[in-house]
Amino acid sequence: MSGEDAPAQQQNAEEQKQQETKTPAESPKTESKPDPPPTSASTEAAATAAAAADTPAPAAEKAPEEDTFTYRALVLTGYGGYDKVKLQVKKGKPALKSGEVMVRVKMCGLNFADLMARQGLYDRLPSPPVTPGMECSGVIEAVGEEVTDRKVGDKVLVLNRSGMWQEVVVVASTHTFLMPEGMSFEEAAALPVNYITAYMMLFDFGHLRPNQSVLVHMAAGGVGIAATQLCKTVNDVTVFGTASASKHEVISQGGVTHPIDYRTRDYVEEVRKISPKGLDIVLDPLGGSDTHKGYNLLKPMGKLISYGAANMLAGQKKNLFAVAKTWYQQFSVHTLSLIQGNRSVCGFHLGYLDSETELIDQAMTAVMDLYRQGKVKPRIDSTYHLEQVGDAMRRMQERNNIGKIILTTEPMKEEEKKEEAKKDEEKKDDKKKDDKKKDDKKKEDKKKDEAKKEEKKDEKKKEEAKKDDKKAEEKKEEVKKEEN
Amino acid sequence: MSGEDAPAQQQNAEEQKQQETKTPAESPKTESKPDPPPTSASTEAAATAAAAADTPAPAAEKAPEEDTFTYRALVLTGYGGYDKVKLQVKKGKPALKSGEVMVRVKMCGLNFADLMARQGLYDRLPSPPVTPGMECSGVIEAVGEEVTDRKVGDKVLVLNRSGMWQEVVVVASTHTFLMPEGMSFEEAAALPVNYITAYMMLFDFGHLRPNQSVLVHMAAGGVGIAATQLCKTVNDVTVFGTASASKHEVISQGGVTHPIDYRTRDYVEEVRKISPKGLDIVLDPLGGSDTHKGYNLLKPMGKLISYGAANMLAGQKKNLFAVAKTWYQQFSVHTLSLIQGNRSVCGFHLGYLDSETELIDQAMTAVMDLYRQGKVKPRIDSTYHLEQVGDAMRRMQERNNIGKIILTTEPMKEEEKKEEAKKDEEKKDDKKKDDKKKDDKKKEDKKKDEAKKEEKKDEKKKEEAKKDDKKAEEKKEEVKKEEN
Repeated sequence: MSGEDAPAQQQNAEEQKQQETKTPAESPKTESKPDPPPTSASTEAAATAAAAADTPAPAAEKAPEEDTFTYRALVLTGYGGYDKVKLQVKKGKPALKSGEVMVRVKMCGLNFADLMARQGLYDRLPSPPVTPGMECSGVIEAVGEEVTDRKVGDKVLVLNRSGMWQEVVVVASTHTFLMPEGMSFEEAAALPVNYITAYMMLFDFGHLRPNQSVLVHMAAGGVGIAATQLCKTVNDVTVFGTASASKHEVISQGGVTHPIDYRTRDYVEEVRKISPKGLDIVLDPLGGSDTHKGYNLLKPMGKLISYGAANMLAGQKKNLFAVAKTWYQQFSVHTLSLIQGNRSVCGFHLGYLDSETELIDQAMTAVMDLYRQGKVKPRIDSTYHLEQVGDAMRRMQERNNIGKIILTTEPMKEEEKKEEAKKDEEKKDDKKKDDKKKDDKKKEDKKKDEAKKEEKKDEKKKEEAKKDDKKAEEKKEEVKKEEN
Repeated sequence: MSGEDAPAQQQNAEEQKQQETKTPAESPKTESKPDPPPTSASTEAAATAAAAADTPAPAAEKAPEEDTFTYRALVLTGYGGYDKVKLQVKKGKPALKSGEVMVRVKMCGLNFADLMARQGLYDRLPSPPVTPGMECSGVIEAVGEEVTDRKVGDKVLVLNRSGMWQEVVVVASTHTFLMPEGMSFEEAAALPVNYITAYMMLFDFGHLRPNQSVLVHMAAGGVGIAATQLCKTVNDVTVFGTASASKHEVISQGGVTHPIDYRTRDYVEEVRKISPKGLDIVLDPLGGSDTHKGYNLLKPMGKLISYGAANMLAGQKKNLFAVAKTWYQQFSVHTLSLIQGNRSVCGFHLGYLDSETELIDQAMTAVMDLYRQGKVKPRIDSTYHLEQVGDAMRRMQERNNIGKIILTTEPMKEEEKKEEAKKDEEKKDDKKKDDKKKDDKKKEDKKKDEAKKEEKKDEKKKEEAKKDDKKAEEKKEEVKKEEN
């Protein structure tokens, strides 16, 4: 497994502070230069870097460990596009309070909440500058007082409200879970958010039982794949999964009974065709009008579980129109409607459950058991270096992934950096080509449209001519009748 | 068991049609005369009686069985008070369609929906004239074609959308369930609605698990007692139950951990005192402002299950103010609120589930198993004759019952009728006495209030006098300071 045994690069603190790597995403200038000079760091970034470094500058001359202990961290410097998450270097060993552990991070998981947070749409992330990230995997490097069930060297996965996208994290030991034998660091970073979310939704709110039917939106996404696998642990559950057609083969193999291409089909109609009575459970990460559709698809005793508002995400920066529309169309329900339909509407978000240690523990224990039995296994879509976080977020936001997107703390190798630069150049060329193609296609479409219009005109003329003929014939017949 | 073997009284049809017993409730004149002369039958009642008799009048002379087959039935003749449910005689043997069975009814169960229906507040009951009642127990008297799993003589309990308050019912055989060994007809009539409702709410929507906490409103009512017993089938469940103080001993013995007198205490405060974090499940039969209170009492992953609007019932006739208030205060919730709270809001009513045979079967099977294991047992509050349906409804609506109120089809004996008449007279006297007491109390209260006001005035005066003293002293001190 890549990066498992490679120690995180520990560069000289002074040097690092100067370097302050900017993420390559979005800005074409830096994309083509994977190792940008310090001049590209904006004043904003510099300010946040200073804020992120906990120890004041004069402390650098003090103790050797405080001086040399540095680690790279992704920092959200302000709300906006992909380039708002920057790679910075933090200096000074974080202090460990009682009950806490320090983890040397190997891999981090990307979640939809991180995309929402970047746009300022997720209130559980503290204000920028702040390190995002709700989950990671790694090795325990130090334990605080009163921590009895963790020791240095333990491989753990970590679930936390935020702050997981960095090389070193300090968290309450209750937020760490021992990795089962045979689990990779990628899998461990992919598991917590998606599987606990899917598990609690399906089995606590949903009370999923044999022979039931479930609609899973974004079935190729992290929660989608987790939910599908968990559905398959119950006998004869029918899974309807929405995803673009190119992903259907993979999600079918993963357990989706009826994949639906939501881009070309009306998923409500498709579900009704197969299951006229509707569904037992609808998992809804979309919000807005899709929540209404989901509610109307419920059978008696059906449960709609809303766990996000992905419809708010349109483009990399906050799209006020999409946000307003999703808000405006937000589902609200009266108890009388619920009573008459015998229905349930639930809301779930793990981010608001972070203090519910007992509930999380129960779900995690159950999920780990299923992992050990080989019944669930996170599917990794792709792994990005911290430097590539912009690309990683873009892949997720544009819904190109099948499975989990992972960030690795393993530093990029020089050859990789060069390759990346090449790719970026190619991408640019491709984009130009694409743009040209698009332009050509537009022109062609326009021509076609015009041709069609002409055809229609011709048809209309022909029809009118026919009508005239008919009228003439009718007249003839009338004349005949009169003659008779 | 009373009435089990007594054949239902089969009176002469012609005679009965004339008699058309009016229920004694509400009208003091008829209350004192349990066997009123036909003159008391209103024209409305006569019209509905004609409508209720399926066979036309001339048919009476035809076949002997059609002529002699009559049975008594309670009929809701119009929306309103207790006297709107009248005892009438239906004539002619009902036809059996394929898949149906005819049941000779022994006992019927009373439900809140019946009270709502009488006031025109329950849309699952067809328009009057109609026989109310969702459940009964009895013996199969005839089976239709294609009925293979029931035979004449089977003791059954019946669950149906309406029409169960009569001596003979014809229903789909799928709506009947064989009574377990040792179950009385009273228990069988008390079980279906309350236990299936409580079971599906707690275990399907609620997903009740060990160590959880549940709020049961009207804990001495039919659903309340069923829910409490079902909670006790799960380890270490804490049950908060609201009921007036006089019922606390009984409901505590039945399994309520913390009885709360909602008449003298704020139940929200009482729950918070014992369970500061709130509750896992709230069963809400009340509606209106109580639904809001219940929602705010939920823990993360908590479920509010709304299954009625008992707050709409104020007085025996439709109280427009209570209905409007309950409507106006009806709970409505946005998905965002649910997401941020990790909460679930569910609506349940068995009346809207009548076509869901499979779901009902599953729940009934589970409840019957628990009955056989001795883990649940309906508690009968009281049994009334069909003639006494008004009193029965009054007892329920005024919340005087602890457990289920049952109607028996066994005819009233002459001595009972006389006793009833005596009681009614006594009741009247008591009412007069009560009224006098109330008047006296009002006068006394007024006196007390006036005395209190006087006291307050005195206190105010004293306080003002004190203030004046203080001011005087302060002045003295100031003078002293100046002197120094």
